[in-house]
Amino acid sequence: MATPASLIQYIDDNADAFIQRLSHAVSIPSISCEAAHRPDVVKMAVWLSNQLKHLGVETSLVDLGKHTSDGEELHLPPAILGRMGCDPLKKTVLIYGHFDVQPASISDGWHTDPFTLTVSPKDELVGRGSTDDKGPILGWLNVLEAHQSLQLPLPVNLRFCFEGMEECGSEGLDDLIHSEVKKGKDGWFDNVDCVCISDNYWLNTRTPCLTYGLRGLSYFKLTVSGPARDLHSGVFGRMVHEPMTDLIALMSKLVDTSGDILIPGIDEMVGGPTVDEIALYKALDYSIADVEDSAGAPIALSSDNTKVMMGRMRMPSLSIHGIEGAFSGVGAKTVIPAKVSGKFSIRLVPPQTPELVEPLVRSYLLSEFAKLKSKNTLTIEDLHGGKPWVTDHKHWNFEAAKRATEAVYHKTPDYTREGGSIPVTLTFADSLGVSVMLLPMGRGDDGAHSTNEKLDRSNFIQGTKLLGTYLYEVAKAAT
Amino acid sequence: MATPASLIQYIDDNADAFIQRLSHAVSIPSISCEAAHRPDVVKMAVWLSNQLKHLGVETSLVDLGKHTSDGEELHLPPAILGRMGCDPLKKTVLIYGHFDVQPASISDGWHTDPFTLTVSPKDELVGRGSTDDKGPILGWLNVLEAHQSLQLPLPVNLRFCFEGMEECGSEGLDDLIHSEVKKGKDGWFDNVDCVCISDNYWLNTRTPCLTYGLRGLSYFKLTVSGPARDLHSGVFGRMVHEPMTDLIALMSKLVDTSGDILIPGIDEMVGGPTVDEIALYKALDYSIADVEDSAGAPIALSSDNTKVMMGRMRMPSLSIHGIEGAFSGVGAKTVIPAKVSGKFSIRLVPPQTPELVEPLVRSYLLSEFAKLKSKNTLTIEDLHGGKPWVTDHKHWNFEAAKRATEAVYHKTPDYTREGGSIPVTLTFADSLGVSVMLLPMGRGDDGAHSTNEKLDRSNFIQGTKLLGTYLYEVAKAAT
Repeated sequence: MATPASLIQYIDDNADAFIQRLSHAVSIPSISCEAAHRPDVVKMAVWLSNQLKHLGVETSLVDLGKHTSDGEELHLPPAILGRMGCDPLKKTVLIYGHFDVQPASISDGWHTDPFTLTVSPKDELVGRGSTDDKGPILGWLNVLEAHQSLQLPLPVNLRFCFEGMEECGSEGLDDLIHSEVKKGKDGWFDNVDCVCISDNYWLNTRTPCLTYGLRGLSYFKLTVSGPARDLHSGVFGRMVHEPMTDLIALMSKLVDTSGDILIPGIDEMVGGPTVDEIALYKALDYSIADVEDSAGAPIALSSDNTKVMMGRMRMPSLSIHGIEGAFSGVGAKTVIPAKVSGKFSIRLVPPQTPELVEPLVRSYLLSEFAKLKSKNTLTIEDLHGGKPWVTDHKHWNFEAAKRATEAVYHKTPDYTREGGSIPVTLTFADSLGVSVMLLPMGRGDDGAHSTNEKLDRSNFIQGTKLLGTYLYEVAKAAT
Repeated sequence: MATPASLIQYIDDNADAFIQRLSHAVSIPSISCEAAHRPDVVKMAVWLSNQLKHLGVETSLVDLGKHTSDGEELHLPPAILGRMGCDPLKKTVLIYGHFDVQPASISDGWHTDPFTLTVSPKDELVGRGSTDDKGPILGWLNVLEAHQSLQLPLPVNLRFCFEGMEECGSEGLDDLIHSEVKKGKDGWFDNVDCVCISDNYWLNTRTPCLTYGLRGLSYFKLTVSGPARDLHSGVFGRMVHEPMTDLIALMSKLVDTSGDILIPGIDEMVGGPTVDEIALYKALDYSIADVEDSAGAPIALSSDNTKVMMGRMRMPSLSIHGIEGAFSGVGAKTVIPAKVSGKFSIRLVPPQTPELVEPLVRSYLLSEFAKLKSKNTLTIEDLHGGKPWVTDHKHWNFEAAKRATEAVYHKTPDYTREGGSIPVTLTFADSLGVSVMLLPMGRGDDGAHSTNEKLDRSNFIQGTKLLGTYLYEVAKAAT
């Protein structure tokens, strides 16, 4: 069944009302990481749940229990699970989104109140959560409303999983997903055929994309300690082993200035690209100029476009984030810090996992530290990690999204792998064993966690059409 | 003229009263670096000036003008200049001390109120300023009081220069000294033959010392900048040149883990020790065990005692203090910092000067940065510096102090060079052109800038005898 023309027409005709609903959603400051705003996250959950119910979705607000934040015990905001349709002749699509947002304050540099959706002269919908991730969630609501108003049956069964803690570690969500999957047909995720997550972005401002991979992460903390307390560099300089000297020496041996990781076995774990993969990278509508524009300076590691793209998408990367315990203020302090901790992380790609990478990092650093012949002490901690993910971008789930993209945007989408992590993706992929796809609504310059976050009006409205059309393409797909 | 036995007797007999006076001095929280305590520094100046007047010293409270601290314009506390005796047949000794103190609060870990002098069970006089530098100043007052009470004439003419901003950069003092020296016989520093500064410490807890050298300093800030803003390591990792990678690479090339400075020409500028010097280092009552005890860990750079001592006293040292602009908090943040500044400093010894060292540092770092082939930008700033100082430890000024030490402590003093800086020393040495000597009263474990600062009762009382005896030895010295 083709996407009904009336659906597309309804979306165009009701664009202003959709923006009005987004405006209401943005007005609730559902900041999950600030205890004072926890009631707003709950308010947002209730509002969203009521919207879904009003649109015919059976919903449940699921209590996720309590957690401790900054020493304070807080109730987690509820997750929303939803179900619409149980037709065994239709495919079932599980939709994920999150209704919490990053902190925002006018004093951070916003040009307008972050919780008042403002339409800019360039037709951008500016406000916290506009693109991350209230816009995409409301895109789905728009599709439901259109079907309800037009009295159209949905082409697929839908399941919803909306959470309110994504910006704060998704606490409680993994347990909920695993538990629902375990319940089988008695759970909320019964008979799911594929998953669609709309919580990332186009590479650029021009071309829609489908995302089929994410990098994982291993985050390390190296601590060198020696003296019992901070020492005066005048009194002790050139008498004792200084922890900073050792730490800097170790951290200089992690990655070179061309981006190659110097820890033996890490880069080597990743095979070369296939011909098919190279073609995908060459086809990307993304260039070094885009990267440098986005970074704000001409600092790309290479002049080879494909190599730079692969650096982000199919290669691991190592970044040094900082040092805890050393002098970090302004001015000039002549301290020899007693205990310093270097922080670095490695973004992982298949077949790397935190479990495979950690022993390589540990043994290399211990061996390099031994070469220093220092009398200080080194400890290595693996602070946290997550597996990388890559899926088949030719699965019918992706083919459906490709056709939907071509129908709405008249463009072939970029096929991308994200350099960062969206852990829930792996939870769905591992627990459900079905195709998971990331289908972004917003553009690469939306400023998701930054000031003046925006979603272009056209991305919201065309994006709504894309989500609707995708459901019809899924329904048609040969499995 | 020998030191009168009555002087020594008086000091012993009046020890408790001397401690009472120190107790009063400590009770005034004359913290120069905290604006709120500026009136207390002034109160301290007035009290000290009145004490001196009462003891027969002609004094002047000298207005040093204003300065800006944390954006607030404050009046500097006055310096105290003093004069006692103008006998052309006597030598003239200029005495320096400071009556301001470091901040202190019970919450920092003091066992007793820092501004209430407390006698510990080990006969330590515990309180902020006890050893740094109110104890030594009051040692001079004790000597004056004894002479006044015993109606003894002083064996030398005295000049005093006491300041209230030492712990806060000695603002205004250099100008005052230069201006007084310029006035010649019309100034307060007329006919000065030698200078005695009591504002440092014994190497250990056992043996008095005379200090004839100080290291200088060159403090550098290396800034690497690239992106226009902080970047997400997932999104940009292995696409762009990361400032932290470059900065860590540069900082790893400054000093090795044996303490050798890797910047060509710095270590090489310093000649080897003379036979006489080696003998001085070998004679020091200070061992690697003392160093490690003081650092709180077995981390000495070498097992060669003399080498370790020379590392502090007659060699330059390079310490890396920290990084400004990188992630320095607890926890795990996956940021690529846009602009990071590494701070390091080099302690200098003659013939090094900041002016000689700076171009070596700059050209080396620029050349090492070029090797990195990074597209980021490096800037090098010389934040501040000071010349090193070494004087003739066989000058009659030192010989007098040596004989005084032998008379009071029945020990030959250690001859030491301090690893840190006391800038006023150079100001006196350069402007007056006479012998300047550092004659410490306190022990190496007094904790001058730390919690539970103390001065042993015996150091205060024997130290008073030392200062008095020194004046008689100066009077006798053949010039």
